[in-house]
Amino acid sequence: MSLDNVRVVLVKPIYGGNVGAVCRAMANMGLSDLALVAPRPLDEDESRMMACHARGILEARREFPDLPSALADCAMVTGTSARGGLYRRHARTPREWAPAAAAAARAGRVALVFGPEDNGLTNEDLAVCTHIVRIPAAEDYTSLNVAQAALVCCYELFLEAGSYEPPEEKSPPATTDLRERMFDIWRRALLDIGFMKEDMADHMMLGLRRVLSRGALTVDDVNIMMGVARQAEWAARREGRG
Amino acid sequence: MSLDNVRVVLVKPIYGGNVGAVCRAMANMGLSDLALVAPRPLDEDESRMMACHARGILEARREFPDLPSALADCAMVTGTSARGGLYRRHARTPREWAPAAAAAARAGRVALVFGPEDNGLTNEDLAVCTHIVRIPAAEDYTSLNVAQAALVCCYELFLEAGSYEPPEEKSPPATTDLRERMFDIWRRALLDIGFMKEDMADHMMLGLRRVLSRGALTVDDVNIMMGVARQAEWAARREGRG
Repeated sequence: MSLDNVRVVLVKPIYGGNVGAVCRAMANMGLSDLALVAPRPLDEDESRMMACHARGILEARREFPDLPSALADCAMVTGTSARGGLYRRHARTPREWAPAAAAAARAGRVALVFGPEDNGLTNEDLAVCTHIVRIPAAEDYTSLNVAQAALVCCYELFLEAGSYEPPEEKSPPATTDLRERMFDIWRRALLDIGFMKEDMADHMMLGLRRVLSRGALTVDDVNIMMGVARQAEWAARREGRG
Repeated sequence: MSLDNVRVVLVKPIYGGNVGAVCRAMANMGLSDLALVAPRPLDEDESRMMACHARGILEARREFPDLPSALADCAMVTGTSARGGLYRRHARTPREWAPAAAAAARAGRVALVFGPEDNGLTNEDLAVCTHIVRIPAAEDYTSLNVAQAALVCCYELFLEAGSYEPPEEKSPPATTDLRERMFDIWRRALLDIGFMKEDMADHMMLGLRRVLSRGALTVDDVNIMMGVARQAEWAARREGRG
């Protein structure tokens, strides 16, 4: 699995809570290899609380004295930056970057590097990187929380790696034949309950057709709607008899 | 601007830090309308710290006693859920959802609803929603931190709204003519410094051409490389004379 080849590297992280939140983001997106470069002593309570069920990643983290040693075995190295300027104008968005990163992770180890919370990566840090990613953001506030930035990059990578299977609608789409049977039953029911008279029935049914055709109906949906109409019809007839 | 029409609604948030982090995510992605439903008293220090430069959103938040009153003026209402089951199998990914949400935000007010940190939105909450979003995640750990979940949804919406202008490479791409002039200068320099002999020059130059063609060179890049070759040539000649 190529996501195993992706290392997240945090350079001089300041807040334990952020380190923990990065762990959780990694676990959510199928990553597990975390390296810290010259971190301050971590607030263990904060980091564990924010890691939540990703404490395993927090505990398995490795620490390195400098950035090059954390990257020693990595081929593609991607730095993240919220700023423009030297180096940074070559930045790609996470979405533009993800296909190249996923390809590189199939061939070897890759790193995704985030800077300290206060100032981000330095030019010296970025010089070691082969790629730079900049997350699209509103002009007024371009600097993301480090764990949120990590999540966006990991999310794009996770989608690109194709590990996600979307929830499946179990009920198949309703066919025209089934839909028309439903409308027949509704037509009869709406006449029986006195919602419309025969002369206006086609016109009124157009409205109902429009309402029920705004979304793509499934077989289950149609069965529910047929059940409602049948019940209304039944109730109206019993009423008439009663 | 249609993003002004997007309200983020947090149902019964527990941790002030998360509320603050949601504010920052919103500011990063150009949103500003925050509603809290029946929140616990907020830890103001935590929430302000995590909001960082988005304190304005935190301070302008509105609180509502229940979900329907927070949504009273909203047309499209999107609930988020990490779980499957009733309602939830109709969930879309944020990317699938974003175009419909952006379109709805051009026409009227829309809401994006997140549940409490411990259990997420209830079935009752989801019943009020017109759409459901589920963020793709690794099977082992599908539940994201609420502020990170908010960021992913807001990020997809921000991209869809087309508010982002990617950083521009200021130097135009190098043309064949310019590239070939660069290779001529390198050829002469590599001969002059004794890196290769004339009989192997074409073969050696193929290697250099390959290295320098892996990425798309800009005019600035070519100027740098021509400068390097010219300087090497000059140094080699001075050496020969000295």
